[in-house]
Amino acid sequence: MDAEALAQKVRAGDARAVACAISWVEDGAGALPALSAALYPETGRAYTIGLTGAPGVGKSSLTARVIETARGRDITVAVLAIDPTSPFTGGALLGDRLRMQTHATDPGVFIRSMATRGHLGGLALATPEAIRILDASGRDLIVVETVGVGQVEVEVAKATDTTLVVVNPGWGDSVQAAKAGILEVADVFVVNKADREGADAAVRDLEVMLGMGPKRGWTPPVVPTSALEGNGIEELWAAAESHREYLSASGDLERRRSARLLAEVEEMASQRLKRSAADVARELHGLAEDLAARRVDPYEAAALLEARLTGR
Amino acid sequence: MDAEALAQKVRAGDARAVACAISWVEDGAGALPALSAALYPETGRAYTIGLTGAPGVGKSSLTARVIETARGRDITVAVLAIDPTSPFTGGALLGDRLRMQTHATDPGVFIRSMATRGHLGGLALATPEAIRILDASGRDLIVVETVGVGQVEVEVAKATDTTLVVVNPGWGDSVQAAKAGILEVADVFVVNKADREGADAAVRDLEVMLGMGPKRGWTPPVVPTSALEGNGIEELWAAAESHREYLSASGDLERRRSARLLAEVEEMASQRLKRSAADVARELHGLAEDLAARRVDPYEAAALLEARLTGR
Repeated sequence: MDAEALAQKVRAGDARAVACAISWVEDGAGALPALSAALYPETGRAYTIGLTGAPGVGKSSLTARVIETARGRDITVAVLAIDPTSPFTGGALLGDRLRMQTHATDPGVFIRSMATRGHLGGLALATPEAIRILDASGRDLIVVETVGVGQVEVEVAKATDTTLVVVNPGWGDSVQAAKAGILEVADVFVVNKADREGADAAVRDLEVMLGMGPKRGWTPPVVPTSALEGNGIEELWAAAESHREYLSASGDLERRRSARLLAEVEEMASQRLKRSAADVARELHGLAEDLAARRVDPYEAAALLEARLTGR
Repeated sequence: MDAEALAQKVRAGDARAVACAISWVEDGAGALPALSAALYPETGRAYTIGLTGAPGVGKSSLTARVIETARGRDITVAVLAIDPTSPFTGGALLGDRLRMQTHATDPGVFIRSMATRGHLGGLALATPEAIRILDASGRDLIVVETVGVGQVEVEVAKATDTTLVVVNPGWGDSVQAAKAGILEVADVFVVNKADREGADAAVRDLEVMLGMGPKRGWTPPVVPTSALEGNGIEELWAAAESHREYLSASGDLERRRSARLLAEVEEMASQRLKRSAADVARELHGLAEDLAARRVDPYEAAALLEARLTGR
């Protein structure tokens, strides 16, 4: 199928076409820029929520509850579950996704996991691209779920309007989140499995940690939930709504979206230049040898490469 | 202190100077390129081991055992503990480092944690730079310890000659490692806390997973250890030694080091170009507005930026 035909079907909300378009993103298909350009005018309408946290905290159960709540309000939903790729697993660690299958027959819910195989910029560039496809397909709400708390998750979280960071009762999780630098990206904290011992302490600890951080216009609320039992879900929804209203009222929503787009474009340009750098490095035959023999140091070599690339 | 004076002290093995030089790396100091160039001829002698795995698997205890084993063989050691930076914690989550303090008074052991505050290229570029400083200071063995199993850890692992991936008995850890794509970077697997139930199963599971992966010249051995009790440490050392011998004999050591240097130089050039891209994007005043108004799509914008940067 060509880009224009696919774009037309995506715009019409055809689920198969959307799935196919996301495969194009995963593979870094040659026709992706054309597809992307064709869909771009239809984007910027959906609201995006990121959901991140360590494996096992209950992200998939929470996502299922968020879907439920949205559908109860007649809001259409797309879920993008980000899987880091591994040749050992083929990105097929989708056991937890099965929990969301209660929504599998509802046409108002689209669920898709995404790995990156061929996309040049990795997940950091593939994620906003996939979000735009879902956005152009007419979904009201896009939930992006990531599997870990590493730097990639921080990158992915930056691609959404409201980021929910999920931890469990017990100090370990919060410390791990802090180590991964994920506290800074949270707009709302979720202490899931709050029926367990230590939930109150976890909420308090997070509030103390937040008090220590830099003052911002929005202070992330800490919401205890029990996704399995359905407790705290309305409060979580309300907290996410409040954040959305704050962003809109303050003008931050447009500013942040615009800054994100610009950062993405810079990253795209950089990735293209990086590929060129690799080509140029190969052309400079003696460079690897000169480096290995300590005749040229890395900074000199980088400057040489840069000069070649920019013609300066 | 100027770069040449500092380089001289680093070359003489002065621990304070080494610590200061690594701070330069962390901060991305202006004189860093000069320091780096001055030290570069003295590098390429140390052997580097990476140690990675999820928080709590016992990396610091293992590192302490590796230090012990090396010192018993009269090998000098430097440990570089990589901490992701977080304004909430100031990279100060160093509790586990204390376990290594038994070596604090041995001049043959240098221990330092590193975060990145100002370094342009993040940990991926700061780590090899810090390794070269330790190398130039005359250490025989450099152990790089990371705190998590995210993409950053994979990047860091790529900066060392031999990578040890640590898991604990129990399926969860291995799955998490698989998700993070860390299985591919392992040269040796360590099942630590092997006195616990399930250790044999964990070893077997890993061996099965390895059997499913692509065939390579080196098959990573799986070594059960108990760092706290000191069991399996000689076997671990022997496994790391075997890998080193394999690398040397096959010529992979030189090839991989050379490829790493070249990749680093390409990344440095890319980072510089990225900074230029951000400058150029700011100069193109209407770009953000055009993107937001959907007059220009991200691919067009990136192409525009690239053309401006390269003058083509």
